[in-house]
Amino acid sequence: MREAIAYLGLGSNEGDRAAHLGRAVERLGAVPGIGAVRASSWHENAYVGDGPPLAPFLNGAVELRTVLSPAALLGVAKALEAEAGRRLPAPHHRPRPLDIDLLLHGDTIVDTRDLVVPHPRWHEREFVRRPLRELGLDLDALPRWQRPAVLHTPAEFAARCSTWLGGGCTVGLVPTMGALHDGHASLMRRARAECDRTAVTIFVNPLQFGPGEDFAAYPRTFDADLRLCAAQQVDVVFAPEPAAMYDPDFCSHVAVGAAATTMEGALRPGHFGGVATVVARLLALARPTHAYFGEKDAQQLAVVRRMVQDLGFPTAIVPCPIVREPDGLARSSRNVYLGAEDRRACTILYRALASARHAFARGERDRDALLARARAVLATEPRAALDYLELRRDGDLAALPPGPVDGGRLLVAARFAGGVRPVRLLDNLSLDAPPDLPAAAEAP
Amino acid sequence: MREAIAYLGLGSNEGDRAAHLGRAVERLGAVPGIGAVRASSWHENAYVGDGPPLAPFLNGAVELRTVLSPAALLGVAKALEAEAGRRLPAPHHRPRPLDIDLLLHGDTIVDTRDLVVPHPRWHEREFVRRPLRELGLDLDALPRWQRPAVLHTPAEFAARCSTWLGGGCTVGLVPTMGALHDGHASLMRRARAECDRTAVTIFVNPLQFGPGEDFAAYPRTFDADLRLCAAQQVDVVFAPEPAAMYDPDFCSHVAVGAAATTMEGALRPGHFGGVATVVARLLALARPTHAYFGEKDAQQLAVVRRMVQDLGFPTAIVPCPIVREPDGLARSSRNVYLGAEDRRACTILYRALASARHAFARGERDRDALLARARAVLATEPRAALDYLELRRDGDLAALPPGPVDGGRLLVAARFAGGVRPVRLLDNLSLDAPPDLPAAAEAP
Repeated sequence: MREAIAYLGLGSNEGDRAAHLGRAVERLGAVPGIGAVRASSWHENAYVGDGPPLAPFLNGAVELRTVLSPAALLGVAKALEAEAGRRLPAPHHRPRPLDIDLLLHGDTIVDTRDLVVPHPRWHEREFVRRPLRELGLDLDALPRWQRPAVLHTPAEFAARCSTWLGGGCTVGLVPTMGALHDGHASLMRRARAECDRTAVTIFVNPLQFGPGEDFAAYPRTFDADLRLCAAQQVDVVFAPEPAAMYDPDFCSHVAVGAAATTMEGALRPGHFGGVATVVARLLALARPTHAYFGEKDAQQLAVVRRMVQDLGFPTAIVPCPIVREPDGLARSSRNVYLGAEDRRACTILYRALASARHAFARGERDRDALLARARAVLATEPRAALDYLELRRDGDLAALPPGPVDGGRLLVAARFAGGVRPVRLLDNLSLDAPPDLPAAAEAP
Repeated sequence: MREAIAYLGLGSNEGDRAAHLGRAVERLGAVPGIGAVRASSWHENAYVGDGPPLAPFLNGAVELRTVLSPAALLGVAKALEAEAGRRLPAPHHRPRPLDIDLLLHGDTIVDTRDLVVPHPRWHEREFVRRPLRELGLDLDALPRWQRPAVLHTPAEFAARCSTWLGGGCTVGLVPTMGALHDGHASLMRRARAECDRTAVTIFVNPLQFGPGEDFAAYPRTFDADLRLCAAQQVDVVFAPEPAAMYDPDFCSHVAVGAAATTMEGALRPGHFGGVATVVARLLALARPTHAYFGEKDAQQLAVVRRMVQDLGFPTAIVPCPIVREPDGLARSSRNVYLGAEDRRACTILYRALASARHAFARGERDRDALLARARAVLATEPRAALDYLELRRDGDLAALPPGPVDGGRLLVAARFAGGVRPVRLLDNLSLDAPPDLPAAAEAP
């Protein structure tokens, strides 16, 4: 049981504020395991935070010697808040008779669901900085959080995620190949909303590129990617080198089943094995509670779901809707390679899908008619070289049973060859999805 | 912050025992977050425990209402112990001025590295039971731990292991197909010694049996297996039905590389793919920090090591030495099918390997001579039908480079057809392992 010097931030903006703070200092001194307590003076501060302004706070900090762990100290602090009449769990944006933050605890780093130490925002808050300076601390020498942390080795990444899991956090993983755009940002937002911690991986996975494909030319925009992750308040970015992921004797891999042999699987042999292998590797490493995938790559999503169930990863796979440009083009990292003409022409993909969806909404249930409808739209655009157009069961993308269609997902892939380099674009749409764009973009 | 009624067990066998206990009760009453404290009377108890007897204890229990979490309450209790002059970390088997155990905390279950609640042994200790009865508790209605817990669904197993990881525990996994013997027990002992929690899986994995193999006839001895696990103080036994592991649409699997195509891999096509898939599935599910494998199945161990590295599971694979019968036969679940004659004859495998090792120890460095030596011994036993005898690099079992041999592992497989049913036996031995059996068993 090691003694540490800990710092607490105290605040009050309700009732007899000085009395609340004074009583807290006195009570802290009586706690087993807490030695000398030294308090700063109390300072008046205007409310800082979101929502309409609250009454001003009286703030200060205390220094204490303690053998209590950060978690035990937090428990005592919460109990003191409760004693002072604070409702627990504390409603957001309410006056607080007593508010105690654990700012620092020796050199201990805590990154759990209930507690993060050093406090992630202490250094941004003058109402914390001032009393700490008054207690004689050199603020520039104190530890801070940096977000996102950028990690390059699998071991560091596994360790960080382990710490979170060990602290009871849910962890959302967003696997990407970088060249991040709004679609990726939507995955990160969803992960942040649903999970205690969010990790983004940026790794252009050589396994999922075939010999003639664009591995070397795949867009790489790391600095911009980091800015996007920072804006989405991602906790960690894992960006390994290929050699760190696959050593020279690498030979085991994940083999995938029938769902991976049609459409993209037929056109890109080995692609989905490479995808499943890297996703399995990332899930094994990070052990996230949730992993976020865009529906844009619908077949990838189906293969990953199947793999996760077959290999039993206890990770919830969360599909996220396609993010589109205002004219309907699905966001993709490869869109940057489209020439101006192709950029205009390629909206034909979404318009073809939307046209079939429109027919379905009006009662069309014949699959050939639905497909013919979409195909007729595609045929109006000579710049689009169609790879496939399919109507599949939603979810696992299995073949639909014979007879009238009562739903399903249309999937399309086409090549556009007029730009910086040839680009293959994918898109898909559920027949019973509501129209999500202005009428102009929906119209064939 | 929910208020719970918690029970602490208090003891002292050093100094003014009643004063230590009385002061602890008084100090507890002053802790923020602890309400009414009610103490039993103190009772004199002879020392109970291992080692030479210590001075008698004065024991009692207290009931308290608290908003402190179990972890925070534990922190306060440890601080009180320290105040009373107890050395921390507490040396085992020493007089203690104050000893506080958290027995119960409402209906909360805690299973972390630092704390297990309800206290795992409270119900075995009369010095705990008596004061709890005095406080008016119905002991039979109180929660207890049961070890091992037997879990049948992957979801329960994943959740249990998650709880452990979330509590900062290391977790040792011992994957087995049941029919447990001393070899398995040695894996469990090692896991218990190295990890905070031990989980044993018992699953006869259909994927790793070929069409003509003994899946249906593989020995199943579940009740005896559970007794062996209980004796080894295993925390959890996971025993799923095949349908719970593989659903009807199961199709993804782990494909393994070159290490899996020779020896057992050549004789049992698909075997190692099945092994790697189920091991990956168990590692994905349990996410153990350590997993224990016997060296008896040396090629399986090599395949698993490779797979774990390739897919990046952050699990340490721990190889454990072969456990042998006194006459050298390696322990195996299939040994029960050996007829009496074959049981005598089959020691030839170990004697053949030991003979080559003996030659190596005396300076023989020619691989053909070493193999010929072992093969000559095998040839003396007509009941043994040799499948293969190989000398490979230790660890990954790659082919040895040409030239003189400076170490390696001999691997042998042979069939014995004279018993209840035909049995294939495997054995292996490192050339530079020291002799581990009495000379009689070593002699060819």
